[in-house]
Amino acid sequence: MNPVDAVRSRSGLVVGVDFGTLSGRAVVVRVADGAELGSATHPYRHGVLDRALPDGTPLGPDWALQVPADYVDVLRTAVPAAIDAAGVDPVRVIAIGTDFTACTMVPTTADGTPLNELEGFASDPHAYVKLWKHHAAQPQADRINALAAKRGEPWLARYGGLISSEWEFAKGLQLLEESPATYRATEHWVEAADWIVWQLCGRYVRNACTAGYKGIYQDDTYPTRDFLAELDPGFAGFVDDKLRPVTGRLGAAAGRLTEEAAAWTGLPAGIVVAVGNVDAHVTAPAARATEPGQMLAIMGTSTCHIMNGEALREVPGMCGVVDGGITPGLWGYEAGQSGVGDILDWFVTNGVPGSYADEAAARGLDLHDLLSEKAATQAVGEHGLLALDWHSGNRSVLVDHELSGLLVGATLTTRPEDVYRALVEATAFGTRTIVEAFDGAGVPVREFVVAGGLLKNPLLMQIYADVLDKPISTIRSAEGPALGSAIHAAVAAGAYPDIHAAAAAMGGATQAAYRPDPARATAYDELYAEYRTLHDYFGRGTNEVMRRLRGIRRRALAGGAS
Amino acid sequence: MNPVDAVRSRSGLVVGVDFGTLSGRAVVVRVADGAELGSATHPYRHGVLDRALPDGTPLGPDWALQVPADYVDVLRTAVPAAIDAAGVDPVRVIAIGTDFTACTMVPTTADGTPLNELEGFASDPHAYVKLWKHHAAQPQADRINALAAKRGEPWLARYGGLISSEWEFAKGLQLLEESPATYRATEHWVEAADWIVWQLCGRYVRNACTAGYKGIYQDDTYPTRDFLAELDPGFAGFVDDKLRPVTGRLGAAAGRLTEEAAAWTGLPAGIVVAVGNVDAHVTAPAARATEPGQMLAIMGTSTCHIMNGEALREVPGMCGVVDGGITPGLWGYEAGQSGVGDILDWFVTNGVPGSYADEAAARGLDLHDLLSEKAATQAVGEHGLLALDWHSGNRSVLVDHELSGLLVGATLTTRPEDVYRALVEATAFGTRTIVEAFDGAGVPVREFVVAGGLLKNPLLMQIYADVLDKPISTIRSAEGPALGSAIHAAVAAGAYPDIHAAAAAMGGATQAAYRPDPARATAYDELYAEYRTLHDYFGRGTNEVMRRLRGIRRRALAGGAS
Repeated sequence: MNPVDAVRSRSGLVVGVDFGTLSGRAVVVRVADGAELGSATHPYRHGVLDRALPDGTPLGPDWALQVPADYVDVLRTAVPAAIDAAGVDPVRVIAIGTDFTACTMVPTTADGTPLNELEGFASDPHAYVKLWKHHAAQPQADRINALAAKRGEPWLARYGGLISSEWEFAKGLQLLEESPATYRATEHWVEAADWIVWQLCGRYVRNACTAGYKGIYQDDTYPTRDFLAELDPGFAGFVDDKLRPVTGRLGAAAGRLTEEAAAWTGLPAGIVVAVGNVDAHVTAPAARATEPGQMLAIMGTSTCHIMNGEALREVPGMCGVVDGGITPGLWGYEAGQSGVGDILDWFVTNGVPGSYADEAAARGLDLHDLLSEKAATQAVGEHGLLALDWHSGNRSVLVDHELSGLLVGATLTTRPEDVYRALVEATAFGTRTIVEAFDGAGVPVREFVVAGGLLKNPLLMQIYADVLDKPISTIRSAEGPALGSAIHAAVAAGAYPDIHAAAAAMGGATQAAYRPDPARATAYDELYAEYRTLHDYFGRGTNEVMRRLRGIRRRALAGGAS
Repeated sequence: MNPVDAVRSRSGLVVGVDFGTLSGRAVVVRVADGAELGSATHPYRHGVLDRALPDGTPLGPDWALQVPADYVDVLRTAVPAAIDAAGVDPVRVIAIGTDFTACTMVPTTADGTPLNELEGFASDPHAYVKLWKHHAAQPQADRINALAAKRGEPWLARYGGLISSEWEFAKGLQLLEESPATYRATEHWVEAADWIVWQLCGRYVRNACTAGYKGIYQDDTYPTRDFLAELDPGFAGFVDDKLRPVTGRLGAAAGRLTEEAAAWTGLPAGIVVAVGNVDAHVTAPAARATEPGQMLAIMGTSTCHIMNGEALREVPGMCGVVDGGITPGLWGYEAGQSGVGDILDWFVTNGVPGSYADEAAARGLDLHDLLSEKAATQAVGEHGLLALDWHSGNRSVLVDHELSGLLVGATLTTRPEDVYRALVEATAFGTRTIVEAFDGAGVPVREFVVAGGLLKNPLLMQIYADVLDKPISTIRSAEGPALGSAIHAAVAAGAYPDIHAAAAAMGGATQAAYRPDPARATAYDELYAEYRTLHDYFGRGTNEVMRRLRGIRRRALAGGAS
């Protein structure tokens, strides 16, 4: 696009669509300044299938499936509704961008038709979308990790030493081993992030983000045929037959909106469709956090940390590092905490007495607000508690889902707000551990930026600032992922030269919205040192009691002494 | 008494009076078989003074005082009421026995008048009774322990290496240092257990139990004048001036009921008054648990373990060993757990959601019952949790009140009944640690007998049987201490030759009321091994995080960062 076209395109609009776990959300955004003009949400008709298929076929434990047609319904409903809400003429829209949960995998035919839509497959669980939180492929992941470690596969270090059961290879191997016929019928094993783009523009383009983080695509190559054959002879052709090495860089155009998709969305046929992306990573430009050293934490049920770096480093315990995984030309790093908001939700549901619920109800607060209010006036360490935030395992930096939660220091005077605060602090200590791992590996964290639902808890945010001893910047938009997708659409349409420039114009963050208090930061140093001691004692093999308790529990549930 | 008199006395009655923390309870008992014919309770008018004196004079933190006249009121009211309830003629009563909380100290004049009843002392906190749970003498206890260890005082090992801030010397040194004039006015520093006997019979007799366990009276001697002078020159005469070395053995007669006390109680003047005793120790004959190797656990808010042994051994971490401390002629051992029922109460009050309270209310249960019911069906280890039962510190075998509670293994599926069961198990593991300390020191525990309020929880009792891998016998009487006092009265009156014989006739226990399940016992061995590893890691100096968290908390409360 020449400069004149770029200027003209900046007067236009873009649409971003964020495909979440339960619904899709579209937002209409002004290219010039990122103003959000209107938005709409459409819940998936089938939600998450974790007990049975729509026809009643039961599912095993840890399964989590979805129905691809539900995604198309978002295009049909949420996009036109967002245009309506914005009150704009759809002809002003110059591009559409999308982001998706990941790793969420669709088995398709050669033309992209999901297998579940084929005659004879409606009752086959393996013919449906395996959602990111489908956790039934752990045995396959264990074997992949063990073999990769044994063979010294060079890509393993790019994933902090372990790949996840959620990712493409583990789910694909499960498909092969549990349903060989469905595996044979699968002509493409497609990230939903790419499948939706395929529906929009008629072209299958693998986005660099999921290919790298979830597809073990590193240095323009995949795991070798030899490695795959050693896993399972039938798996030797997985890469060649089911994955396509054609990748699109983030912020590029995947193609143009088809007539069919134009009819679904009400948008003009022929507008640019951006390469797909992942909900966390796409948020970086929306928070104006794409420069090297800007760590973006998307904090909700769990927390995802993403950060660009100029050089390739092996950060112990990270989730992954991918060339161009966040923006082209930089190394995109990812780390994560498996449990953050969900630990607080668990405590509020299971560990707070009725008198607190009554007080909250009488004052029109929810329990999180009430506990935060009661805990907010405490001095650091006043509650005498210390927790480990591993109630749903530890993603970074220990990468061990056999770990569990710990609370030490309870006395007969310990109150619910004390425990709540200790749990918040534990998640902050977990974040600090990750930040220090990056700093220590030569990928320094210069700025800490937060997006996500936990932004609404100011006590939590202040504790993070104090524990990290860093100012915390906060995303300006309440529509982080959808805005990020819209920014990618603007770049793909040529309105900006790259994602960084688009982020500067369209994204935004409140700089240093929370500043550390020096005295509290010093006080937290002392508690953090205690956290790290327990972290290493329980998490690095000195005392594997957590792992053994899980084993004892499994044996007991399987029919031990009662 | 000759055999004829003994036979005649067995047709008589005895009265036992148990002076607890909040009330006194009298029971009328048949000498022949221990049948309890009637009982009555009288609450202390002033209860526990822990915020202010009756005239409003404020008290410092950790203070806990009582008013001696409240004890006399129990004699005036509860004793006649018990006689009435029994519907018996008081002339049939041949003796009265009493037991008391300890170490509970009364400062008196030479004739036993409590100082608070003297002109000019009503507003002086130091003129009142320092109740067992007065915990403001910790600095004095620390100095006594440090000096005794430095000097290698021979008595220190008799107390597991540490004496308590609750005991006679620490409280006496606090009195001297904080109120020298009151110390000078104190002509006797009297255990309430002996003061009440003094009121009954007009004679001051130091019972062997408190003299030994609380008064550092060992091998017919007290700590030396030299030792006391090194603590504080003004304290040199503490033993000679304030304590009297005249002790009475348990089960002996201290004297005869005075006319005045006969008028209070409605009992015949001249009947035998037994030497005083402590509530826990006096319970042993009521539970028929006075033989060597019979460990009696009085389980309530906290647990006290007492056991006779034939030889003197130094058991690491015991509370004390006293010659004749439970029954004359045997070495009486004592150990304890600072928190048991109170940990469960704390959890039920602070950690169980309203939905459970609603269910319990709808079904007419209390929350302990409901949680026990929900936890009862679990297999051992099914909850995946492990706790340390140190929420109010550890009395035995670590003797460290800076320790605190711990819970490991929590996940997002952990429910309140899981935590409840883990806490019950932790207290059982704590008991097993004590039992093993006695076994390992050459004082084997042959039988485990339980008295106290926790008897009413069958899940808890069964878990103890499984964790200890021992049958558990349970006291028959619901009035353990008062019955024990009555048994001591019968012995003092000569109705039985000794406490053992009286216990055989008047006490009782259900043998092996709970039997261990072999499979569960084996399963608990595995969890107990994990408990011991954490016990030693947190409790024996490898990681003193609990101590540091307490220190941080104290600093924070004193005005640290907020």
